[in-house]
Amino acid sequence: MACAPACFPAPGPLCVSPFIATDPVWQEKAQASVQLPNGEAAKELVREEESRDFSHLGSPPKLSRRGQDHASKITPFWNTFDCMLNDGFHPDANEGGIVNMGIANNSLMEDELLEYMHNNFKIEAIDLTYGSSLFGSTRLFQALCTHYNSADFSPKVPVLPKHILTSPGCGPLLDQIFEHLADPGDGVLVAAPCYNGFEADLTTRSKVHCIPVHCPKDKGHGSEAFNFEGESALRGFEEAIKDSESKGIKITSIIVCNPNNPVGRCYDRGALLAYGRFAAKHGLHLVFDEIYALSTFPTKDVDKPQPFISALNIDWADESGLHPGYVHILSSASKDFGLNGFRVGTFVSQHNETLVGAMKMTCKLYMVSSPADALFSSLLLNQDYLQGFIKTNRLRLAEAYDFVRSWCLHHKIDYTPSNAGHFLLVDLSRFMPREIQGRELEGREAESALWAKALDEKVCITPGFNYHHPEAGTYRLTFSLKRPCLIEGLARLEKALGLPPWL
Amino acid sequence: MACAPACFPAPGPLCVSPFIATDPVWQEKAQASVQLPNGEAAKELVREEESRDFSHLGSPPKLSRRGQDHASKITPFWNTFDCMLNDGFHPDANEGGIVNMGIANNSLMEDELLEYMHNNFKIEAIDLTYGSSLFGSTRLFQALCTHYNSADFSPKVPVLPKHILTSPGCGPLLDQIFEHLADPGDGVLVAAPCYNGFEADLTTRSKVHCIPVHCPKDKGHGSEAFNFEGESALRGFEEAIKDSESKGIKITSIIVCNPNNPVGRCYDRGALLAYGRFAAKHGLHLVFDEIYALSTFPTKDVDKPQPFISALNIDWADESGLHPGYVHILSSASKDFGLNGFRVGTFVSQHNETLVGAMKMTCKLYMVSSPADALFSSLLLNQDYLQGFIKTNRLRLAEAYDFVRSWCLHHKIDYTPSNAGHFLLVDLSRFMPREIQGRELEGREAESALWAKALDEKVCITPGFNYHHPEAGTYRLTFSLKRPCLIEGLARLEKALGLPPWL
Repeated sequence: MACAPACFPAPGPLCVSPFIATDPVWQEKAQASVQLPNGEAAKELVREEESRDFSHLGSPPKLSRRGQDHASKITPFWNTFDCMLNDGFHPDANEGGIVNMGIANNSLMEDELLEYMHNNFKIEAIDLTYGSSLFGSTRLFQALCTHYNSADFSPKVPVLPKHILTSPGCGPLLDQIFEHLADPGDGVLVAAPCYNGFEADLTTRSKVHCIPVHCPKDKGHGSEAFNFEGESALRGFEEAIKDSESKGIKITSIIVCNPNNPVGRCYDRGALLAYGRFAAKHGLHLVFDEIYALSTFPTKDVDKPQPFISALNIDWADESGLHPGYVHILSSASKDFGLNGFRVGTFVSQHNETLVGAMKMTCKLYMVSSPADALFSSLLLNQDYLQGFIKTNRLRLAEAYDFVRSWCLHHKIDYTPSNAGHFLLVDLSRFMPREIQGRELEGREAESALWAKALDEKVCITPGFNYHHPEAGTYRLTFSLKRPCLIEGLARLEKALGLPPWL
Repeated sequence: MACAPACFPAPGPLCVSPFIATDPVWQEKAQASVQLPNGEAAKELVREEESRDFSHLGSPPKLSRRGQDHASKITPFWNTFDCMLNDGFHPDANEGGIVNMGIANNSLMEDELLEYMHNNFKIEAIDLTYGSSLFGSTRLFQALCTHYNSADFSPKVPVLPKHILTSPGCGPLLDQIFEHLADPGDGVLVAAPCYNGFEADLTTRSKVHCIPVHCPKDKGHGSEAFNFEGESALRGFEEAIKDSESKGIKITSIIVCNPNNPVGRCYDRGALLAYGRFAAKHGLHLVFDEIYALSTFPTKDVDKPQPFISALNIDWADESGLHPGYVHILSSASKDFGLNGFRVGTFVSQHNETLVGAMKMTCKLYMVSSPADALFSSLLLNQDYLQGFIKTNRLRLAEAYDFVRSWCLHHKIDYTPSNAGHFLLVDLSRFMPREIQGRELEGREAESALWAKALDEKVCITPGFNYHHPEAGTYRLTFSLKRPCLIEGLARLEKALGLPPWL
């Protein structure tokens, strides 16, 4: 399941049965809707073709070894994931659709964004061709410099266009960075629980191991506040290095996800500097995933919530003894701006010209699309609008978080207090099915079974297995849904959990 | 120079001196334009930082072996390429800019496209999130089915959504396909002269050799009509297989570029079937690059110009004995629709569910951007508009081709008659500098020197080395420029060639 989409359960027969349909209707619908110019339904003709026998032409063509490896990883869940995207709940248009509390999508600013995009769409002749460079347009670079040089990031050294590369999202950037920072079979450390996309992004093409680092077992499950403070953030890392080395895996880098996905917390300065010292000691690159940089919000749960501190705000050499050429930062339009579909990711490295140069070899393959480039640039450069947008977004995130928090408190469901991101971790272990078809369930199997049960009620949540959470029964719940959708999702979850309605 | 952008010369010291500036002004300009919130110029502060000494922190960080390999391939020409993009000629706005007759960009429909895009921009809420699938939206699949099921492609078997995947352009699709059809070190054959992007797309990530196949030396240079007709299209391929095998390179596939880049011709049915028989004999995949499918045009040069025949229009099993699971087709919004910057590429495979499935593993990393998806879908689904658009585009291509053809005839410059694409091959061998700084030049060095000389006159053309053209002195000239730009480009080229003005 290493490379599955983001809200998939652990593998095992219990994930598909008996709760969840594996033959999504949308696929058939999509095929059935295709009409030929003469009005014939294309699907029928294709069905005839599919019954043709080509066995006289020898065995069917083979894929490469790596192609076969990819083929073996495609399971029915991929269809399920597409089904979730295709059949999303809408209070008016699709009441029977799935409420997706599994993916990190922020719909809270949807109306404002659609209005802004329609009012501000403007492309130039150069947008029809390859743009002003292969690595991002002059316009986008200017917009990103304004963004990174703002108070939100407060960079020690101003960000210039030559520090930046772009690509269609953070996924392809992670894929590319680790091709350049690690060789096949090398490893990258990341504190657990961790965003499961890292693994997919690192292993699929670059063949780099993403190694979750768990804090010592007697010290909790990695989502406690002290895992984000000072030296204690690094607990487990020395052991992880030794352990990897003993397995012949060379560690070249660490990913630091700040604000953290899935925990929803920010690292304090002490923790960031501890990472710096550790990286300096072992000669490791630090790749900061700052995709939720502006998605912090006030919360009643935390007395003094830790604000976001960008890696750009640190003088790595003076403050932690790390050569700043080891420090690289990722961000994107996807999360803070609610623009997952636009596919605009940003890579910033201010002291490593060689890496920025080398990355051009691959960035040239995966370019940002010009209409998205134009629209995102417009948003970033429209400072008056942007400031209001960010402020409103934070308020709505806070409201949505509080809503789900109240739901948890009402049902006495434990959750991890957080002040950033689009989700929170909840402990649903007591609701996990204990048996299925007469067979006892434990651990990950039980966790997956509850995931499937929720999906059967048409609400998707993400099991902790996906995040290497050490304890079965913790799930990530996205709360940045529009209110009617969030209410419906929680109501369905109550059904799946066998709880009486809250509202 | 294997992975350089598309209009680069052969390597060698003569490419950078004495004709061409290697320190493009635009880079400096881009850095200089960045202002901090307090109004300070960011560049000055960065300059201070750049003079800091980090040597006490040990040696600068290293890249992975493959990262170092990429770094070694970045030459000053990459800056030059960006410079060309940044500093494009415009008759009013940038008279001193570079006329780019080196890249395949079609500006002939620019005004219509900009008008259409501004009048038809419409995105939905789902476009802000991951869309209706990770591999292309339902809307785009529907539009592409309409496109492929039209008379232009006349598919034997109707194209359904399940046959299609999308990614940001044909480059990333080639990169991905060959990861699935070949293992590192395997080879792919392609008739020479051939589009140089294939090499960059295949080698950079997938580490697959792109092997140009030259026809026997006594039979011309591969751009003659008979290289696109019947069995003769395959001359040299048997030998290429043997030669590769003797070097330990396993050939898994052939790329067929139809209409052909850089020759500008279409293969006849006999040639396509010859490819099919050859593929069946050797168990090879056929990957058709049909990116110029709709860019054929009438021309006075050719009596009965060969129209485009899509691989979709062939019953590979019955007509050539090839298992149809070996046949895969690429296309894109870039060329036929003049939308290079939109980054929408399409992969179609109708009889190989395993490959389509496996490709999802990588396509998920590189997704199409939703505003481009929405706009391109709109264009494809607006049949009334689209038919007029394609017709007008063909007429303008014909006019532009005729214009450059007349220029060639006037100057007695040999060229390869063509009826497709955005360019033609011209023989400028007699204009190549014979010596430089007292040293005699020959072959590729002389070819590069003329490229540099032209660039010094601020016009870019592409040397035949880039296309594995067997004879030095052949260049690819893009003619799909707006008329004032084309006139200026040819005038500058006359200067570089030492010719009197035509107009």
